[in-house]
Amino acid sequence: FYSSTAGETDQDARSTTIFDPQDTFQRRHIGPSPSETEKMLDFLRYDSLDSFVKDVVPSNILSSRNLQVSPNHGLSETELLERLGEIAAKNKKARSYIGCGYAGTKTPAVIARNILECPEWYTSYTPYQPEISQGRLESLVNFQTMVTDLTGLAISNASVLDEATAAGEAMTMSLAALPASRQKRPGRTFFVDSKVHPQTIAGLASRAEGFGIHISVGDALDLSKVKEVGQDLIGVLVQYPATDGSVHDYSELAGTVHELGAPLSVATDLLALTLLKAPGEFGADIAFGNAQRFGVPMGYGGPHAAFFATADKLKRKMPGRLIGVSKDRLGDPAYRLALQTREQHIRREKATSNICTAQALLANMSAMYAVYHGPAGLKAIADRVHSMARILAEGVERLGFDVNGGSKAAGGYFDTVAIKVNDAKDVAATITEWYGINLRVLDEHRVSVTMDETVSMRDLEDILAALSAFAERIPGRLTWNQMLLEIAEDLEITTTKPAEVPEVVRRTSPYLQHPVFNKYHSETEMLRYIHHLQSKDLSLANSMIPLGSCTMKLNATTEMLPITWPEFGTLHPFVPLDQAQGYKVLLDELEADLADITGFDAVSLQPNSGAQGEFTGLRVIRAYFKSLGQGQRDVCLIPASAHGTNPASASMAGMRVVTIKCDPKSGDLDMADLKIKAEKYKDHLAAIMITYPSTYGVFEPQVKEACETVHSFGGQVYMDGANMNAQIGLCSPGEIGADVCHLNLHKTFCIPHGGGGPGVGPIGVKKHLADFLPGHPIVPTGGAQAIAPVSAAPWGSASILPISWSYIKMMGARGLTHATKITLLNANYMAARLSAHYPILYTNAKGRCAHEFILDTRGFKETCGIEAIDIAKRLQDYGFHAPTMSWPVPNTLMIEPTESENLQELDRFCDALINIRQEIKEIEEGKAPRERNVLKMAPHTVKDLITGEWDRSYSREKAAHPLSYLKERKFWPTVTRVDDGTFHSQLQLSMG
Amino acid sequence: FYSSTAGETDQDARSTTIFDPQDTFQRRHIGPSPSETEKMLDFLRYDSLDSFVKDVVPSNILSSRNLQVSPNHGLSETELLERLGEIAAKNKKARSYIGCGYAGTKTPAVIARNILECPEWYTSYTPYQPEISQGRLESLVNFQTMVTDLTGLAISNASVLDEATAAGEAMTMSLAALPASRQKRPGRTFFVDSKVHPQTIAGLASRAEGFGIHISVGDALDLSKVKEVGQDLIGVLVQYPATDGSVHDYSELAGTVHELGAPLSVATDLLALTLLKAPGEFGADIAFGNAQRFGVPMGYGGPHAAFFATADKLKRKMPGRLIGVSKDRLGDPAYRLALQTREQHIRREKATSNICTAQALLANMSAMYAVYHGPAGLKAIADRVHSMARILAEGVERLGFDVNGGSKAAGGYFDTVAIKVNDAKDVAATITEWYGINLRVLDEHRVSVTMDETVSMRDLEDILAALSAFAERIPGRLTWNQMLLEIAEDLEITTTKPAEVPEVVRRTSPYLQHPVFNKYHSETEMLRYIHHLQSKDLSLANSMIPLGSCTMKLNATTEMLPITWPEFGTLHPFVPLDQAQGYKVLLDELEADLADITGFDAVSLQPNSGAQGEFTGLRVIRAYFKSLGQGQRDVCLIPASAHGTNPASASMAGMRVVTIKCDPKSGDLDMADLKIKAEKYKDHLAAIMITYPSTYGVFEPQVKEACETVHSFGGQVYMDGANMNAQIGLCSPGEIGADVCHLNLHKTFCIPHGGGGPGVGPIGVKKHLADFLPGHPIVPTGGAQAIAPVSAAPWGSASILPISWSYIKMMGARGLTHATKITLLNANYMAARLSAHYPILYTNAKGRCAHEFILDTRGFKETCGIEAIDIAKRLQDYGFHAPTMSWPVPNTLMIEPTESENLQELDRFCDALINIRQEIKEIEEGKAPRERNVLKMAPHTVKDLITGEWDRSYSREKAAHPLSYLKERKFWPTVTRVDDGTFHSQLQLSMG
Ligand SMILES: Cc1ncc(COP(=O)(O)O)c(C=O)c1O
Ligand SMILES: Cc1ncc(COP(=O)(O)O)c(C=O)c1O
Ligand SMILES: O=C([O-])O
Repeated sequence: FYSSTAGETDQDARSTTIFDPQDTFQRRHIGPSPSETEKMLDFLRYDSLDSFVKDVVPSNILSSRNLQVSPNHGLSETELLERLGEIAAKNKKARSYIGCGYAGTKTPAVIARNILECPEWYTSYTPYQPEISQGRLESLVNFQTMVTDLTGLAISNASVLDEATAAGEAMTMSLAALPASRQKRPGRTFFVDSKVHPQTIAGLASRAEGFGIHISVGDALDLSKVKEVGQDLIGVLVQYPATDGSVHDYSELAGTVHELGAPLSVATDLLALTLLKAPGEFGADIAFGNAQRFGVPMGYGGPHAAFFATADKLKRKMPGRLIGVSKDRLGDPAYRLALQTREQHIRREKATSNICTAQALLANMSAMYAVYHGPAGLKAIADRVHSMARILAEGVERLGFDVNGGSKAAGGYFDTVAIKVNDAKDVAATITEWYGINLRVLDEHRVSVTMDETVSMRDLEDILAALSAFAERIPGRLTWNQMLLEIAEDLEITTTKPAEVPEVVRRTSPYLQHPVFNKYHSETEMLRYIHHLQSKDLSLANSMIPLGSCTMKLNATTEMLPITWPEFGTLHPFVPLDQAQGYKVLLDELEADLADITGFDAVSLQPNSGAQGEFTGLRVIRAYFKSLGQGQRDVCLIPASAHGTNPASASMAGMRVVTIKCDPKSGDLDMADLKIKAEKYKDHLAAIMITYPSTYGVFEPQVKEACETVHSFGGQVYMDGANMNAQIGLCSPGEIGADVCHLNLHKTFCIPHGGGGPGVGPIGVKKHLADFLPGHPIVPTGGAQAIAPVSAAPWGSASILPISWSYIKMMGARGLTHATKITLLNANYMAARLSAHYPILYTNAKGRCAHEFILDTRGFKETCGIEAIDIAKRLQDYGFHAPTMSWPVPNTLMIEPTESENLQELDRFCDALINIRQEIKEIEEGKAPRERNVLKMAPHTVKDLITGEWDRSYSREKAAHPLSYLKERKFWPTVTRVDDGTFHSQLQLSMG
Repeated sequence: FYSSTAGETDQDARSTTIFDPQDTFQRRHIGPSPSETEKMLDFLRYDSLDSFVKDVVPSNILSSRNLQVSPNHGLSETELLERLGEIAAKNKKARSYIGCGYAGTKTPAVIARNILECPEWYTSYTPYQPEISQGRLESLVNFQTMVTDLTGLAISNASVLDEATAAGEAMTMSLAALPASRQKRPGRTFFVDSKVHPQTIAGLASRAEGFGIHISVGDALDLSKVKEVGQDLIGVLVQYPATDGSVHDYSELAGTVHELGAPLSVATDLLALTLLKAPGEFGADIAFGNAQRFGVPMGYGGPHAAFFATADKLKRKMPGRLIGVSKDRLGDPAYRLALQTREQHIRREKATSNICTAQALLANMSAMYAVYHGPAGLKAIADRVHSMARILAEGVERLGFDVNGGSKAAGGYFDTVAIKVNDAKDVAATITEWYGINLRVLDEHRVSVTMDETVSMRDLEDILAALSAFAERIPGRLTWNQMLLEIAEDLEITTTKPAEVPEVVRRTSPYLQHPVFNKYHSETEMLRYIHHLQSKDLSLANSMIPLGSCTMKLNATTEMLPITWPEFGTLHPFVPLDQAQGYKVLLDELEADLADITGFDAVSLQPNSGAQGEFTGLRVIRAYFKSLGQGQRDVCLIPASAHGTNPASASMAGMRVVTIKCDPKSGDLDMADLKIKAEKYKDHLAAIMITYPSTYGVFEPQVKEACETVHSFGGQVYMDGANMNAQIGLCSPGEIGADVCHLNLHKTFCIPHGGGGPGVGPIGVKKHLADFLPGHPIVPTGGAQAIAPVSAAPWGSASILPISWSYIKMMGARGLTHATKITLLNANYMAARLSAHYPILYTNAKGRCAHEFILDTRGFKETCGIEAIDIAKRLQDYGFHAPTMSWPVPNTLMIEPTESENLQELDRFCDALINIRQEIKEIEEGKAPRERNVLKMAPHTVKDLITGEWDRSYSREKAAHPLSYLKERKFWPTVTRVDDGTFHSQLQLSMG
């Protein structure tokens, strides 16, 4: 019954024996039914999908190869879950007390179910349209408030990728904050305390190189060491509590650093900060860390939200997104992205950060964790964690161990106990083998044990029992349980009188006093709060989100299910590899499939976002050239049309950016300009960065020639894979001629956007670059001559990789290829329908776009004062999220439907735009005024429509229900237009 | 930090060692914080919770016993899930092909996640308030449409409890449809074909007794047998396909039955009906069955939605709820409960059915399954199932077995193959033991194998391999896999040419042609449809639902998690008991805890609803009396205030109902009247049914006396436990003097209401009644002299029992008791606040209500024409669901807050009611008109507010935002007032 003449369908894509399962996935993922596909082909006057594709994809790049992804026809949903269940079962459940920036946590079930597992939360996009995003925005402001309160600093952003990249941001921000003259000093040095987490130190190396910064690792408490650096000092970083668990008072250090005119950065832990003096209170200028233990499973390394806060004076240098409180047209308070035009990467090569996708979903989970527990609840958790550490330390001492080394810190410790042993590696390995307990090897003679919220009395008993195998003396007369009770009694530790940290580091200031952290402590109220915020936001559960370059496709439930399986969630990223064999199978298969799809030889899954992928790929290229003795190659050619992250990444990787023109008519790369510049810089040419299909949404026919040109001058080709959804199965970066490419798994491979992250930005490379793929200081990964890591965890955001793996496995080679054809068809159908009403900006010689296209709305400014933003806002009244606005071409709209939208939805969106065109015509023809017309006043809220007198030139019904489907399905913005063009310096960034 | 002087708090309820887990549940379940509790006590002028309780609960029933529920302090959420995981692991995963009304199914992930696991769907109440329930109502209409289409009958209801009770409904409906004279014939006989499922036949026995109906089981195809019954015939029931898998053409039978003036009932299978001629097309008057295999896991027996359809001429006799399409005040189409005042149980003792809670949530899942697959998808599933059965039959024959007995039916078979063997019990047991495969023992010499959607080729191979151990000959040269492929080829079965049923029974008529079944076949569209419907409905995720007598408390996420664990979901109810040891532990513990809580000696978990519990309890009482030779005891005393199900159940159990008056002032039972009637009927006195606290929301002080009185005249005391939430830990039915009591687990014990079901209505009994607890024909359960089963499955709705078990285990004895005190406090706080504005109808001598109270709104009719319904509808404008309206006292509102609502929410609701009182005053004072005022026009939709001119006496803002919190949180009804007082005979009951 799914027969069709419209080329391959999902049923064709499977064999046809009666025994095959019926819960095939392709037909659920791909929106248009076979008959809809036929209708669209008819409309475009093609008799088959393949003849259509020939008009879209240049013949010289069309691949003759079939994808090898197996099984070819894809697994059914049931088969997938069975297979994944088997894989998950290979991950061993051990208890981890490794710490080092990751800790066990209890995700409140109400948060897991209603945020992490809830499509309304996880499918929404970065809240660039504030009127239909007030829920997420409020939650992110809660996150910011939580961070500023706990760190004692003035400003927090809405998350960065992880603690290691946060350290990098802190370093480059420190540099940027210095007077220009000092920034240029050749000896510029970032001083890093040796007790910073090792993966952070390793990550800093990766960032430092491109900026020509020296990293000096040493004892920051030895102030003379810091002073020695003198005017070369660009900043100091300490870990608080330190990686070995010790807590130190850094106030003197802060004074010293400030005297040297540099900022002090503090890597820290939000839970510890409920008990410890806030960094802002002892002089820190920047504080950052991992918010993971606020309710986000460790997930073998990520994703988690890293937080990042600074003193007010540094706020203009802040990387990432900030949310602020502004006002809407009616003067009501409204949240919006603040300082938005200052998102670092938008500054292109002048940026010191390239961060774009961040960790919004995880930030929301952590913020909700704080909302649910409130200040007293968080403190109680921290009190118990600290008390457990105290009791454990005492227990371990009673076994005759020397605890916390010779150097007991004046500040004591919070959650981590360091234990002296003969051979730390051996002790840890033996305890893992015999007891299934993972300790951390701190150094040759110390293991450490980190306590967390999940630790039970039973766990303490097990740890003591395990350590006793190596003990001097064993207190014979008591069971472990009795011993623990006795210790608690001896130390007089009770719930109402928990262990306290030493006064010198003890926190006295209040935090989380805002009502939002003090109202929702019953599950009923928490659920309602989450639901209430959710109901303000438009997500894929409402309607299509046709954001060009963002690929807002289906994030299927079956793909999402494994995300909350404990077999994937509870693993610490540094467990011994034999405990993560399930992950290994999955990562290996995913790497192999992505290599196949991209036409490359090796893949690294480490980067946590597309922008991080760019940075990684370019550093790989640099390392490659250095290995060839061509370290001087540092010029990166970038087309004018490129996404802002491209030049930002290039310059972070230490490259000089040279812009290549694009043809103003066709949008294509100006080949003449390319040749001139490639030749001009031939001795320094490192790379070209190209996006394909181009950011203008066209398969440029001369892409191969461009690659060959760059290669002929000794450069490498970096492909930005953001638009990979247009290529899969039809062509591939590797075959086209690229040497490296990143993929946004959160675009093409179904990881949901989460309201602004998480993302995964793996890179694929040709064989000659494979040796340079990034490594890791703790867990062996990457190439033989690996560059320094770009993420804190060896495989970045491992716990969401099952999503992409599942997508690929369920689609199979044929399903993936078919999806690509439909994604092209959907875009071309819309472009064709809309071309009768709006100019379409760029198309190929056959008049075809790729998977997205640009609606040229620039003309209306002159004819009637209407701009793209007015159309974008008016689309909200029609129940839609706007397409990508003013990028890559100012004052236009770029539309990308994806394969998951069916004809009905494409038509509904076209109808809306066509009707808006009529509304514009009314202004053009003078039937509606140029000001206060239905577009300029858009979007309309209920309040706007029902309050006071109505003095508009249009009716209330026209405002609300311009097309009849809106009477049945209407999504209401909750605030009227928020002016997001202006930078409000007085914007309130957290709840006061 | 949770210290408090307000009596027991959640922290008190745990011991206080630092080692205890912190994710305690009580403080999350109970809304008010300790300081809020204190505020409420202050307001009521008590210095402790316990002194408050003394003023509420009569001292002569206050229990001195502590609950034994262990652990006393409750398990933490993590501990609970660990414990439950261990229990779940005891259930063995075997493959079941038992059939008999239950089949494997694949719940589409998008439906599981977004309906079954979604609080917005599962926490809503029966859609009595249509304006804020259009989503569920539409989905239930889809269910009805699906059922009428597939059965070929005119009218379907919105689900009944299970297939066995549906059979009972069909039987009593058949009786009620006869001319009065024939209804009374002493020989009245319901003829049941012997190929009806055994559990259905057993269930019929339970229903027949009370109505004095004889059940005659025989071969219905032998028409002479049917004709023999003559004028005593009240109806005939056949199973289609029959329980042994055979399909028969019943058209001749239909003719014969109709000639005898009786209706033909057909128990059937929706999936089979996509291939088989519809019952309505061969003359059936009633068709019913289990919709389980449309996407609802077997769950060890339930809950699932049973469907029930009849010919148009019988519609006035229909039991249960029907949804219809009506119009709202603006003339727009609006769904609503139809024939609502005719819900059978509301007819009290004149009812032939007592059904109240049904299976709405499961009906919605099944309807969505049909929406997702559409007609072609469903047929493809059925085609494959049938083809698998054909191939299996052929394979089994090739092994030398005789298939489908000697009597191959002319109609063939659909999904079930009957196989002749020597010793069926032995074969089945051996195959279970060796292969982990469950077949059904059909009779001494036949096993049967039922195919379903989940069966894979591998499964068929395993079945053949297992059977081959008992085979005559084994085809040696082929693997099982090759053999299956060969058979498919020999029989020419492919996906496009699947096996067909014989023409005589083949379906030719179309079904599910309505667009709703043909639009949402991609996951994206399905998600949006589900989300769209959800967004129209008010649930506990929005605000409190203070429905008196309904106990709309928190349904916690952690309680809900196990519902979708496969270890609970995939079990067939008739698997060997050793495969269900996890369930056994859970059921045993739950029975023990409920016995403890109620003060009884034994518990049966079989009844699927409160009303079924009543029926069961009363039948147990009758059986008890019969065993004593007092079968004549058949009078049931019921207070005038009783819920309609009480008299309905009594009369279904064959009792005569005698009404006891209530004091019009106090609401209390009229003790004098009780004594007179108990004495008057002493020789026939069977029971009294009382609700405690009374349905008026008061702990009647003389309840013990009432029990003693009835006992002294030889009667038993039945307690309706609907109000158990007011008793737990403070008093108990057993100690008060009851002999039997049902509990609504969907009220007191956190099973969510699901928009009108599922429910569980277990009964507890004193020792002397334990022997009579209901049994089961297939799985041993119940007492030594068990009455016939009241449900199809031995433990009714087993798969949702983990919810109640979890609630009890997490609350612990102390948490449960504390919750009761808070529930009483919440109600009394509200009553006290509101008493300054509205009369409170009944309170005890201290002026206190129990856990609910009645707001007397009757006076406004006279002062200004306002009725309770106007207040109810106006509350929607304030974002609230109305309290229980006009029950138990006409034109009043009964409010029950439960312990889960915190002070903030109680106050918000009081504020709304107080503001409405002001709005009423404006009418009373002539400041607002008596017609078209803000109450009479309520609720207001956006459309109502923005369309056309505004000619009301109040402003739009007043309509929409009468209190300021509504500007931030507003729930919009999607239709204006739907007139649900009138019976629309022309109501459209399905999508045309
Ligand atoms: C073309 C292009 N390149 C790079 C990026 C950056 O990717 P990410 O947001 O994952 O860092 C984007 C993001 O939208 C993009 O569209
Ligand atoms: C007092 C009382 N008895 C019996 C019932 C019937 O219970 P059920 O709906 O579970 O059949 C109800 C339902 O609301 C009730 O309130
Ligand atoms: O997120 C983007 O900048 O596209």
